[in-house]
Amino acid sequence: MRGVFLSLEGGEGAGKSTQAKRLAEALEARGVHVVLTREPGGTEGAEAIRGLLMQGAVNRWSAHSETLLFAAARADHVEKLIRPAVEAGSWVLCDRYVDSTRAYQGAQHIDDAAILALHGFGSKGLLPDRTLVLDLPDGAGHARSIARDGGAADRFGARGPDFHAAVAAQFRRIAEAEPDRVRLIDASGSMDDVTTSLMDALADLLP
Amino acid sequence: MRGVFLSLEGGEGAGKSTQAKRLAEALEARGVHVVLTREPGGTEGAEAIRGLLMQGAVNRWSAHSETLLFAAARADHVEKLIRPAVEAGSWVLCDRYVDSTRAYQGAQHIDDAAILALHGFGSKGLLPDRTLVLDLPDGAGHARSIARDGGAADRFGARGPDFHAAVAAQFRRIAEAEPDRVRLIDASGSMDDVTTSLMDALADLLP
Repeated sequence: MRGVFLSLEGGEGAGKSTQAKRLAEALEARGVHVVLTREPGGTEGAEAIRGLLMQGAVNRWSAHSETLLFAAARADHVEKLIRPAVEAGSWVLCDRYVDSTRAYQGAQHIDDAAILALHGFGSKGLLPDRTLVLDLPDGAGHARSIARDGGAADRFGARGPDFHAAVAAQFRRIAEAEPDRVRLIDASGSMDDVTTSLMDALADLLP
Repeated sequence: MRGVFLSLEGGEGAGKSTQAKRLAEALEARGVHVVLTREPGGTEGAEAIRGLLMQGAVNRWSAHSETLLFAAARADHVEKLIRPAVEAGSWVLCDRYVDSTRAYQGAQHIDDAAILALHGFGSKGLLPDRTLVLDLPDGAGHARSIARDGGAADRFGARGPDFHAAVAAQFRRIAEAEPDRVRLIDASGSMDDVTTSLMDALADLLP
Protein backbone atom coordinates (compact mmCIF):
# COMPACT_ATOMS: atom_id res chain seq x y z
CA MET A 1 0.00 0.00 0.00
CA ARG A 2 1.28 3.43 -0.98
CA GLY A 3 2.24 5.74 1.91
CA VAL A 4 1.66 9.50 2.20
CA PHE A 5 3.96 12.34 1.22
CA LEU A 6 3.76 15.47 3.39
CA SER A 7 5.77 18.68 3.24
CA LEU A 8 6.11 21.31 5.92
CA GLU A 9 6.78 24.83 4.69
CA GLY A 10 7.16 28.36 6.00
CA GLY A 11 9.53 31.29 6.30
CA GLU A 12 12.45 31.73 8.70
CA GLY A 13 11.65 31.43 12.40
CA ALA A 14 8.18 29.92 11.96
CA GLY A 15 9.21 26.92 14.08
CA LYS A 16 9.38 24.55 11.13
CA SER A 17 12.16 22.23 12.32
CA THR A 18 10.68 21.94 15.83
CA GLN A 19 7.21 21.26 14.46
CA ALA A 20 8.55 18.73 11.96
CA LYS A 21 9.89 16.64 14.86
CA ARG A 22 6.70 17.09 16.93
CA LEU A 23 4.49 16.22 13.98
CA ALA A 24 6.55 13.12 13.20
CA GLU A 25 6.11 11.98 16.82
CA ALA A 26 2.37 12.68 16.79
CA LEU A 27 2.02 10.66 13.58
CA GLU A 28 4.11 7.78 14.93
CA ALA A 29 1.79 7.79 17.99
CA ARG A 30 -1.05 7.18 15.52
CA GLY A 31 0.73 4.09 14.29
CA VAL A 32 2.19 5.22 10.98
CA HIS A 33 5.86 4.83 10.09
CA VAL A 34 7.35 8.28 9.44
CA VAL A 35 10.47 9.11 7.45
CA LEU A 36 11.51 12.63 8.47
CA THR A 37 13.70 14.36 5.93
CA ARG A 38 14.59 17.87 4.78
CA GLU A 39 15.47 20.01 1.80
CA PRO A 40 17.78 20.99 0.41
CA GLY A 41 19.35 17.66 1.32
CA GLY A 42 18.02 14.34 2.56
CA THR A 43 20.38 12.17 0.49
CA GLU A 44 24.16 12.14 0.25
CA GLY A 45 24.25 13.91 -3.11
CA ALA A 46 21.57 16.44 -2.17
CA GLU A 47 23.34 17.26 1.10
CA ALA A 48 26.50 18.00 -0.90
CA ILE A 49 24.48 20.41 -3.05
CA ARG A 50 22.99 21.88 0.16
CA GLY A 51 26.52 22.81 1.23
CA LEU A 52 26.92 24.86 -1.96
CA LEU A 53 23.50 26.48 -1.56
CA MET A 54 23.47 27.47 2.10
CA GLN A 55 27.04 28.67 2.63
CA GLY A 56 28.94 31.65 1.30
CA ALA A 57 27.94 35.21 0.42
CA VAL A 58 24.27 36.12 -0.07
CA ASN A 59 25.01 36.86 -3.75
CA ARG A 60 27.15 33.76 -4.30
CA TRP A 61 24.66 32.38 -6.85
CA SER A 62 22.32 34.12 -9.24
CA ALA A 63 18.64 33.32 -8.67
CA HIS A 64 18.74 31.18 -11.84
CA SER A 65 21.76 29.10 -10.79
CA GLU A 66 20.22 28.70 -7.35
CA THR A 67 16.91 27.48 -8.78
CA LEU A 68 18.74 24.89 -10.91
CA LEU A 69 20.76 23.70 -7.90
CA PHE A 70 17.60 23.27 -5.81
CA ALA A 71 16.01 21.32 -8.67
CA ALA A 72 19.11 19.08 -8.93
CA ALA A 73 19.14 18.36 -5.19
CA ARG A 74 15.39 17.68 -5.21
CA ALA A 75 15.69 15.28 -8.16
CA ASP A 76 18.23 13.22 -6.21
CA HIS A 77 16.14 13.31 -3.03
CA VAL A 78 12.92 12.31 -4.80
CA GLU A 79 14.52 9.50 -6.78
CA LYS A 80 16.59 7.94 -4.01
CA LEU A 81 14.54 8.59 -0.86
CA ILE A 82 11.07 10.13 -1.16
CA ARG A 83 9.56 8.08 -3.98
CA PRO A 84 10.90 4.68 -2.80
CA ALA A 85 9.81 5.34 0.82
CA VAL A 86 6.26 6.39 -0.16
CA GLU A 87 5.99 3.44 -2.54
CA ALA A 88 7.08 1.14 0.32
CA GLY A 89 4.18 2.46 2.44
CA SER A 90 5.89 5.02 4.68
CA TRP A 91 4.71 8.50 5.51
CA VAL A 92 7.43 10.87 4.34
CA LEU A 93 7.51 14.25 6.10
CA CYS A 94 9.80 16.68 4.30
CA ASP A 95 10.98 19.90 5.96
CA ARG A 96 10.73 22.19 2.88
CA TYR A 97 10.05 21.02 -0.69
CA VAL A 98 9.24 22.57 -4.06
CA ASP A 99 6.94 25.24 -2.57
CA SER A 100 10.01 26.69 -0.82
CA THR A 101 11.64 27.12 -4.23
CA ARG A 102 8.43 28.73 -5.53
CA ALA A 103 8.39 31.09 -2.50
CA TYR A 104 12.09 31.95 -2.09
CA GLN A 105 13.15 32.01 -5.73
CA GLY A 106 9.74 33.36 -6.73
CA ALA A 107 10.44 36.27 -4.37
CA GLN A 108 13.53 36.85 -6.53
CA HIS A 109 11.35 37.08 -9.66
CA ILE A 110 11.89 33.58 -10.97
CA ASP A 111 8.76 32.64 -12.90
CA ASP A 112 6.54 30.09 -11.13
CA ALA A 113 5.83 28.19 -14.35
CA ALA A 114 9.59 27.87 -14.98
CA ILE A 115 10.13 26.47 -11.47
CA LEU A 116 7.36 23.92 -12.03
CA ALA A 117 8.85 23.02 -15.42
CA LEU A 118 12.23 22.31 -13.78
CA HIS A 119 10.39 20.24 -11.16
CA GLY A 120 8.70 18.33 -13.97
CA PHE A 121 12.07 17.64 -15.59
CA GLY A 122 14.01 16.65 -12.46
CA SER A 123 11.39 15.02 -10.23
CA LYS A 124 8.59 14.11 -12.66
CA GLY A 125 6.58 16.86 -10.98
CA LEU A 126 5.99 14.87 -7.78
CA LEU A 127 3.85 16.95 -5.37
CA PRO A 128 3.04 16.17 -1.73
CA ASP A 129 -0.34 14.71 -0.82
CA ARG A 130 -0.58 17.56 1.70
CA THR A 131 1.55 20.64 2.30
CA LEU A 132 1.35 22.46 5.63
CA VAL A 133 2.56 26.06 5.62
CA LEU A 134 3.45 27.61 8.98
CA ASP A 135 2.28 31.19 8.71
CA LEU A 136 3.24 34.14 10.92
CA PRO A 137 2.42 37.85 10.64
CA ASP A 138 5.03 39.65 8.51
CA GLY A 139 8.19 40.39 10.46
CA ALA A 140 7.50 38.03 13.37
CA GLY A 141 9.31 35.02 11.95
CA HIS A 142 12.33 36.92 10.72
CA ALA A 143 12.71 38.61 14.13
CA ARG A 144 12.47 35.19 15.84
CA SER A 145 15.10 33.69 13.54
CA ILE A 146 17.50 36.58 14.20
CA ALA A 147 17.02 36.07 17.94
CA ARG A 148 17.71 32.34 17.47
CA ASP A 149 20.62 32.40 15.03
CA GLY A 150 22.39 35.57 16.12
CA GLY A 151 24.81 36.44 13.34
CA ALA A 152 24.91 32.87 12.05
CA ALA A 153 22.06 32.99 9.54
CA ASP A 154 22.52 31.08 6.27
CA ARG A 155 22.40 32.71 2.80
CA PHE A 156 18.60 33.00 2.94
CA GLY A 157 18.12 34.03 6.57
CA ALA A 158 20.70 36.77 6.02
CA ARG A 159 18.39 38.70 3.66
CA GLY A 160 16.33 41.68 4.78
CA PRO A 161 12.72 41.94 6.04
CA ASP A 162 11.29 42.93 2.64
CA PHE A 163 12.55 39.68 1.19
CA HIS A 164 10.99 37.65 4.00
CA ALA A 165 7.65 39.45 3.62
CA ALA A 166 7.76 38.61 -0.11
CA VAL A 167 8.45 34.94 0.71
CA ALA A 168 5.46 34.82 3.12
CA ALA A 169 3.26 36.43 0.47
CA GLN A 170 4.32 33.76 -2.05
CA PHE A 171 3.41 30.95 0.38
CA ARG A 172 -0.03 32.54 0.93
CA ARG A 173 -0.55 32.85 -2.82
CA ILE A 174 0.28 29.15 -3.31
CA ALA A 175 -2.10 28.13 -0.48
CA GLU A 176 -4.89 30.18 -2.02
CA ALA A 177 -4.33 28.74 -5.49
CA GLU A 178 -4.11 25.08 -4.35
CA PRO A 179 -6.44 24.75 -1.33
CA ASP A 180 -6.81 20.95 -1.58
CA ARG A 181 -3.10 20.30 -1.25
CA VAL A 182 -1.82 23.33 0.67
CA ARG A 183 -3.08 24.43 4.10
CA LEU A 184 -2.01 27.60 5.88
CA ILE A 185 -1.42 26.95 9.60
CA ASP A 186 -1.36 29.79 12.14
CA ALA A 187 2.08 29.44 13.78
CA SER A 188 1.66 32.22 16.33
CA GLY A 189 0.17 30.03 19.10
CA SER A 190 1.91 27.74 21.60
CA MET A 191 3.97 24.80 20.32
CA ASP A 192 1.20 22.42 21.39
CA ASP A 193 -1.47 24.49 19.66
CA VAL A 194 0.50 24.50 16.42
CA THR A 195 1.08 20.73 16.50
CA THR A 196 -2.66 20.21 17.11
CA SER A 197 -3.48 22.44 14.12
CA LEU A 198 -1.06 20.47 11.94
CA MET A 199 -2.63 17.15 12.96
CA ASP A 200 -6.14 18.57 12.36
CA ALA A 201 -5.11 19.49 8.84
CA LEU A 202 -4.18 15.84 8.22
CA ALA A 203 -7.35 14.31 9.73
CA ASP A 204 -8.70 13.09 6.38
CA LEU A 205 -5.44 11.28 5.57
CA LEU A 206 -4.97 9.48 8.90
CA PRO A 207 -5.79 5.78 9.26
CA MET B 1 33.14 46.08 -29.95
CA ARG B 2 31.72 42.65 -29.08
CA GLY B 3 34.22 39.77 -29.03
CA VAL B 4 33.70 36.21 -30.24
CA PHE B 5 32.53 33.17 -28.30
CA LEU B 6 34.02 29.82 -29.37
CA SER B 7 33.55 26.37 -27.91
CA LEU B 8 35.70 23.31 -28.49
CA GLU B 9 33.94 19.97 -28.19
CA GLY B 10 34.58 16.28 -28.60
CA GLY B 11 34.66 12.93 -26.83
CA GLU B 12 37.33 11.57 -24.49
CA GLY B 13 40.85 11.39 -25.89
CA ALA B 14 40.22 13.60 -28.92
CA GLY B 15 43.01 15.96 -27.81
CA LYS B 16 40.62 18.73 -26.76
CA SER B 17 42.62 20.24 -23.89
CA THR B 18 45.87 20.23 -25.90
CA GLN B 19 44.16 21.77 -28.92
CA ALA B 20 42.42 24.38 -26.75
CA LYS B 21 45.83 25.68 -25.64
CA ARG B 22 47.29 25.51 -29.17
CA LEU B 23 44.26 27.25 -30.65
CA ALA B 24 44.40 30.00 -28.01
CA GLU B 25 48.07 30.58 -28.89
CA ALA B 26 47.35 30.63 -32.62
CA LEU B 27 44.56 33.16 -32.08
CA GLU B 28 46.74 35.34 -29.84
CA ALA B 29 49.38 35.29 -32.60
CA ARG B 30 46.69 36.80 -34.85
CA GLY B 31 46.33 39.68 -32.41
CA VAL B 32 43.11 38.83 -30.58
CA HIS B 33 42.84 38.65 -26.79
CA VAL B 34 41.78 35.12 -25.80
CA VAL B 35 40.13 34.05 -22.54
CA LEU B 36 40.60 30.28 -22.28
CA THR B 37 38.10 28.60 -19.98
CA ARG B 38 36.46 25.21 -19.49
CA GLU B 39 33.27 23.45 -18.46
CA PRO B 40 32.05 22.30 -16.12
CA GLY B 41 33.78 25.10 -14.22
CA GLY B 42 35.44 28.35 -15.18
CA THR B 43 34.20 30.34 -12.18
CA GLU B 44 34.51 29.68 -8.47
CA GLY B 45 30.91 28.49 -8.07
CA ALA B 46 30.95 26.40 -11.24
CA GLU B 47 34.24 24.74 -10.23
CA ALA B 48 32.59 23.73 -6.93
CA ILE B 49 29.76 22.13 -8.92
CA ARG B 50 32.40 20.48 -11.17
CA GLY B 51 33.75 18.73 -8.08
CA LEU B 52 30.32 17.18 -7.47
CA LEU B 53 29.93 16.19 -11.12
CA MET B 54 33.27 14.65 -11.95
CA GLN B 55 34.07 12.73 -8.78
CA GLY B 56 32.48 9.69 -7.17
CA ALA B 57 30.82 6.59 -8.58
CA VAL B 58 29.63 6.47 -12.21
CA ASN B 59 26.03 6.22 -10.96
CA ARG B 60 26.39 8.91 -8.29
CA TRP B 61 23.81 11.13 -10.04
CA SER B 62 20.82 10.27 -12.18
CA ALA B 63 21.02 11.67 -15.71
CA HIS B 64 18.35 14.22 -14.72
CA SER B 65 20.20 15.50 -11.63
CA GLU B 66 23.39 15.61 -13.65
CA THR B 67 21.77 17.65 -16.42
CA LEU B 68 20.46 20.17 -13.85
CA LEU B 69 23.89 20.45 -12.22
CA PHE B 70 25.56 21.12 -15.59
CA ALA B 71 22.93 23.79 -16.31
CA ALA B 72 23.54 25.41 -12.89
CA ALA B 73 27.31 25.47 -13.40
CA ARG B 74 26.90 26.86 -16.93
CA ALA B 75 24.53 29.61 -15.72
CA ASP B 76 27.17 30.80 -13.27
CA HIS B 77 29.94 30.60 -15.88
CA VAL B 78 27.96 32.47 -18.53
CA GLU B 79 26.80 35.21 -16.18
CA LYS B 80 30.09 35.86 -14.41
CA LEU B 81 32.73 35.13 -17.05
CA ILE B 82 31.67 34.33 -20.63
CA ARG B 83 29.09 37.06 -21.26
CA PRO B 84 31.08 39.90 -19.61
CA ALA B 85 34.31 38.89 -21.41
CA VAL B 86 32.65 38.70 -24.84
CA GLU B 87 30.87 42.00 -24.23
CA ALA B 88 34.24 43.55 -23.30
CA GLY B 89 35.62 42.51 -26.70
CA SER B 90 37.57 39.33 -25.83
CA TRP B 91 37.55 36.05 -27.68
CA VAL B 92 36.34 33.42 -25.23
CA LEU B 93 37.42 29.86 -26.00
CA CYS B 94 35.54 27.36 -23.87
CA ASP B 95 36.71 23.74 -23.53
CA ARG B 96 33.23 22.09 -23.60
CA TYR B 97 29.90 23.93 -23.46
CA VAL B 98 26.20 23.13 -23.91
CA ASP B 99 26.82 20.74 -26.83
CA SER B 100 28.69 18.46 -24.39
CA THR B 101 25.52 18.28 -22.29
CA ARG B 102 23.51 17.55 -25.44
CA ALA B 103 25.98 14.79 -26.39
CA TYR B 104 26.75 13.18 -23.01
CA GLN B 105 23.34 13.51 -21.35
CA GLY B 106 21.63 13.03 -24.70
CA ALA B 107 23.47 9.69 -24.91
CA GLN B 108 21.70 8.87 -21.63
CA HIS B 109 18.30 9.57 -23.24
CA ILE B 110 17.77 13.08 -21.92
CA ASP B 111 15.63 14.90 -24.46
CA ASP B 112 17.52 17.50 -26.52
CA ALA B 113 14.65 20.00 -26.32
CA ALA B 114 14.63 19.70 -22.52
CA ILE B 115 18.39 20.38 -22.39
CA LEU B 116 17.94 23.46 -24.57
CA ALA B 117 15.02 24.61 -22.37
CA LEU B 118 17.24 24.38 -19.27
CA HIS B 119 19.91 26.30 -21.16
CA GLY B 120 17.31 28.95 -22.00
CA PHE B 121 16.34 29.22 -18.35
CA GLY B 122 19.85 29.29 -16.85
CA SER B 123 21.96 31.02 -19.50
CA LYS B 124 19.37 32.83 -21.67
CA GLY B 125 20.22 30.29 -24.36
CA LEU B 126 23.61 31.80 -25.17
CA LEU B 127 25.23 29.80 -28.00
CA PRO B 128 28.81 30.12 -29.30
CA ASP B 129 29.49 32.02 -32.50
CA ARG B 130 31.35 28.90 -33.62
CA THR B 131 31.67 25.42 -32.16
CA LEU B 132 34.52 23.15 -33.23
CA VAL B 133 33.99 19.43 -32.64
CA LEU B 134 37.09 17.22 -32.63
CA ASP B 135 35.98 14.02 -34.30
CA LEU B 136 37.71 10.63 -34.24
CA PRO B 137 36.63 7.22 -35.59
CA ASP B 138 34.56 5.35 -32.98
CA GLY B 139 36.78 3.71 -30.37
CA ALA B 140 39.96 5.64 -31.17
CA GLY B 141 39.41 8.45 -28.66
CA HIS B 142 38.27 6.22 -25.85
CA ALA B 143 41.33 3.96 -26.34
CA ARG B 144 43.59 7.05 -26.31
CA SER B 145 42.01 8.36 -23.11
CA ILE B 146 42.45 4.98 -21.38
CA ALA B 147 46.13 4.94 -22.43
CA ARG B 148 46.49 8.51 -21.05
CA ASP B 149 44.51 8.26 -17.79
CA GLY B 150 45.22 4.66 -16.81
CA GLY B 151 42.70 3.83 -14.12
CA ALA B 152 42.15 7.49 -13.20
CA ALA B 153 39.27 8.35 -15.53
CA ASP B 154 36.50 10.66 -14.20
CA ARG B 155 32.81 9.69 -13.99
CA PHE B 156 32.35 10.10 -17.76
CA GLY B 157 35.63 8.62 -19.01
CA ALA B 158 34.94 5.56 -16.86
CA ARG B 159 31.94 4.51 -18.99
CA GLY B 160 32.18 1.83 -21.67
CA PRO B 161 32.84 2.03 -25.45
CA ASP B 162 29.13 1.91 -26.39
CA PHE B 163 28.52 5.07 -24.39
CA HIS B 164 31.42 6.88 -26.05
CA ALA B 165 30.23 5.82 -29.52
CA ALA B 166 26.79 7.24 -28.65
CA VAL B 167 28.38 10.52 -27.53
CA ALA B 168 30.32 10.80 -30.80
CA ALA B 169 27.12 10.11 -32.75
CA GLN B 170 25.33 12.90 -30.85
CA PHE B 171 28.10 15.39 -31.71
CA ARG B 172 27.85 14.42 -35.39
CA ARG B 173 24.08 14.83 -35.29
CA ILE B 174 24.41 18.35 -33.81
CA ALA B 175 27.03 19.32 -36.43
CA GLU B 176 24.75 18.12 -39.22
CA ALA B 177 21.73 19.98 -37.83
CA GLU B 178 23.56 23.29 -37.23
CA PRO B 179 26.23 23.55 -39.95
CA ASP B 180 26.66 27.34 -39.66
CA ARG B 181 27.62 27.21 -36.01
CA VAL B 182 29.09 23.73 -35.58
CA ARG B 183 32.03 22.35 -37.59
CA LEU B 184 33.31 18.78 -37.38
CA ILE B 185 37.13 18.70 -37.36
CA ASP B 186 39.06 15.53 -38.19
CA ALA B 187 41.19 14.94 -35.08
CA SER B 188 43.09 11.91 -36.40
CA GLY B 189 45.99 13.87 -37.98
CA SER B 190 49.11 15.36 -36.36
CA MET B 191 48.72 18.01 -33.66
CA ASP B 192 49.82 20.67 -36.15
CA ASP B 193 47.35 19.46 -38.76
CA VAL B 194 44.49 19.60 -36.29
CA THR B 195 45.37 23.13 -35.13
CA THR B 196 45.53 24.24 -38.77
CA SER B 197 42.08 22.73 -39.42
CA LEU B 198 40.68 24.53 -36.36
CA MET B 199 42.06 27.88 -37.52
CA ASP B 200 40.74 27.26 -41.07
CA ALA B 201 37.27 26.73 -39.57
CA LEU B 202 37.49 30.20 -37.98
CA ALA B 203 38.81 32.02 -41.08
CA ASP B 204 35.60 34.02 -41.63
CA LEU B 205 35.63 35.28 -38.02
CA LEU B 206 39.27 36.39 -37.85
CA PRO B 207 40.19 40.06 -38.12
